Amino acid sequence: MDEMLIKLGENAVKAERELAILNVTVKNDALKATADALVNRADEIIKANEEDVENAKKNGMSSALIDRLLLTKERIEGMAEGLMQLISLPDPIGEVLSMKKTAGGLMIGKKRVPLGVIGIIYEARPNVTADAFGLCFKSGNACILKGGSDAINSNKKIVEVIKDALKSLNLNENSIQLIESTDREITKQFMKMNKYVDVLIPRGSARLIKTTVEESTVPVIETGSGNCHVYVDEFADIDMAVNIIYNAKTQRIGVCNACESLVIHKKVLAEALPKIAAKLKEKNVEIRCDEEALKVMPELKAATEEDFYTEYLDYIISVKSVDSIEEAIEHINTHNTKHSEAIITKDYSNANKFLNEIDAAAVYVNASTRFTDGFEFGFGAEIGISTQKLHARGPMGLNELTTSKYIIYGEGQVRK
Amino acid sequence: MDEMLIKLGENAVKAERELAILNVTVKNDALKATADALVNRADEIIKANEEDVENAKKNGMSSALIDRLLLTKERIEGMAEGLMQLISLPDPIGEVLSMKKTAGGLMIGKKRVPLGVIGIIYEARPNVTADAFGLCFKSGNACILKGGSDAINSNKKIVEVIKDALKSLNLNENSIQLIESTDREITKQFMKMNKYVDVLIPRGSARLIKTTVEESTVPVIETGSGNCHVYVDEFADIDMAVNIIYNAKTQRIGVCNACESLVIHKKVLAEALPKIAAKLKEKNVEIRCDEEALKVMPELKAATEEDFYTEYLDYIISVKSVDSIEEAIEHINTHNTKHSEAIITKDYSNANKFLNEIDAAAVYVNASTRFTDGFEFGFGAEIGISTQKLHARGPMGLNELTTSKYIIYGEGQVRK
Repeated sequence: MDEMLIKLGENAVKAERELAILNVTVKNDALKATADALVNRADEIIKANEEDVENAKKNGMSSALIDRLLLTKERIEGMAEGLMQLISLPDPIGEVLSMKKTAGGLMIGKKRVPLGVIGIIYEARPNVTADAFGLCFKSGNACILKGGSDAINSNKKIVEVIKDALKSLNLNENSIQLIESTDREITKQFMKMNKYVDVLIPRGSARLIKTTVEESTVPVIETGSGNCHVYVDEFADIDMAVNIIYNAKTQRIGVCNACESLVIHKKVLAEALPKIAAKLKEKNVEIRCDEEALKVMPELKAATEEDFYTEYLDYIISVKSVDSIEEAIEHINTHNTKHSEAIITKDYSNANKFLNEIDAAAVYVNASTRFTDGFEFGFGAEIGISTQKLHARGPMGLNELTTSKYIIYGEGQVRK
Repeated sequence: MDEMLIKLGENAVKAERELAILNVTVKNDALKATADALVNRADEIIKANEEDVENAKKNGMSSALIDRLLLTKERIEGMAEGLMQLISLPDPIGEVLSMKKTAGGLMIGKKRVPLGVIGIIYEARPNVTADAFGLCFKSGNACILKGGSDAINSNKKIVEVIKDALKSLNLNENSIQLIESTDREITKQFMKMNKYVDVLIPRGSARLIKTTVEESTVPVIETGSGNCHVYVDEFADIDMAVNIIYNAKTQRIGVCNACESLVIHKKVLAEALPKIAAKLKEKNVEIRCDEEALKVMPELKAATEEDFYTEYLDYIISVKSVDSIEEAIEHINTHNTKHSEAIITKDYSNANKFLNEIDAAAVYVNASTRFTDGFEFGFGAEIGISTQKLHARGPMGLNELTTSKYIIYGEGQVRK
């Protein structure tokens, strides 16, 4: 393995042992110091960012991507604000989740501790650098960051500023480390550093996440895409359905918890679909229908089977009509990405059935799928939304960046 | 991907949807029926096993491995007994771990649900087949098993018996499926079935686990080796230390929670080491010492640096002497496998320091490391002991074969 990576790994392990036992006041003071430093040294950061932006323009990067790369004074203040918000959150570390006495008199407790070293792989969004550091640091973890090559100068400067702030408080500057190499081979090796890295979190496009899952031997927390459904039950309040669908589809289109597909019971199709279509027309949403739905509104477009698997992230929605709640559940479980699903119903048993049988991170009765979010769930911060089942499922806050260890108090017990 | 594997995957997903919503009484009845069937059809199983044993002998398998492969009437009764024990355990599924109301009036609950489809890869120990099925089934998961090729006839028969018992109760027989192919390429493909398999658990040798971690794209729960330490503090009760060390080293030597290395404070080295050595001599334990310890007992063997990294699983133990508890913690955190570690001390602060700063799944004060075990911890069953930090750490019982989903009760809420 690359010498530089080994060095980063050793540094991170050393740093995490110090971080794991820091008092929350020390951690909060450091978050304040790093937030202040980012604002105070905004000019330096903007200058480094200008280099990246210039190079990106030369390389023909699209204006949308350049906008994500660009740092302004306001955006840097936003990064600092993100760190400040973490201060108000309780320390996730040290809580003893349970403590029980065994027949043999041992007291066995389960204590929340940091994961250790967290690797974060992301694209050319330099704001993630400060954000990821803050979440890892507050939860007592050291982080090793691998950002997009196009943001390398911005990231180097942001990391330098944070390291300086940590040093000024006599804290281990290797609490945050950046892989400065832009060699893809190095990134591949980074994904196999099981000896030093406890978990990898890829943040970004579906392709980035897929590559990380495929290449990595280090455990990965997968944050994924959302092909989210709203099911309009035969016992739905149709006005409520219209309102929720309008919100879930159009309130913000480019996000994983937006609704991409409707499932409508045939008994209410003729009543519900025209009302839904009329409301969605306000935002010019294109509606792609199955055969039954087309019979109700022949002026709409036809859906293909592929549509039912598609996360549009756009002003498009598909419609599937069903004969029963069972068919609705079967359709959703087959086509969804296990993210967020909602039923609109006034029927008690159907609500329960949907909650029980839908396989997803978040299952809603009579509410918009857009609520699947760490802030909305009251976590105060979010590192992403997990669509895998291991370790964390759904919005991940600070607690999801921790693990546990058993602490056992004995009085000389031996095993018989 | 291989057609047969895809079929197994599809079957498993279908089965797990049925399993996820089974009532606990139905699950318990099925466990009883499978246990009875194993005993009633023991002759068939033994006959199939005889084929495997004959082949193994022809292939020159060692007698120790043949013993692990061999099934007798008693051993089959033991398998059935294991299934019966699961009946008395509470259903891990369906519990709502928390339920909170948001400012917007949503009720957000976190509900325990099965992982889904669990893949188990193991060696030629046919008892694991029934054991793994029972744990997965009680926790509402479908399992796909890949056992060692040498046990293929035994496994086929055991799976047939279990499937028949499930069918007799009109339950989905694909709750348990066996990969019958002994082609290694198939096993490799099995490790990449992310679309169908939620988690892989390798059970067996360090090599099997390493291969699974390296080859798999499906999330893996790693159960690992244990290089466990007992630290004799300067404030230790020496008699207690002797007793605990004797237990931790010799009560059972071939297990991951056995003690492999001692760390002794130099202030008590001259008093403690001879007493420990005298007691360990009862079992002819070989003691390998660092320089300081050798000065106390020159008749013992010298340890190399490699000794301090070695999990002997034998009547051998290493001794490292230290100047301080800090040095002890540093030594252990550097050399351990994050399994189980113990301090023997009468000092309050040193006990706390050790509990806080040692990085391991289980950290003990004044007790034997041998207690790290699902049964000893009161879980009633165990699928293994996780030495990784993601999802589960330490002994894994039924709860560790579950995940959660958020269930959200609304009254028409949309996001602002």
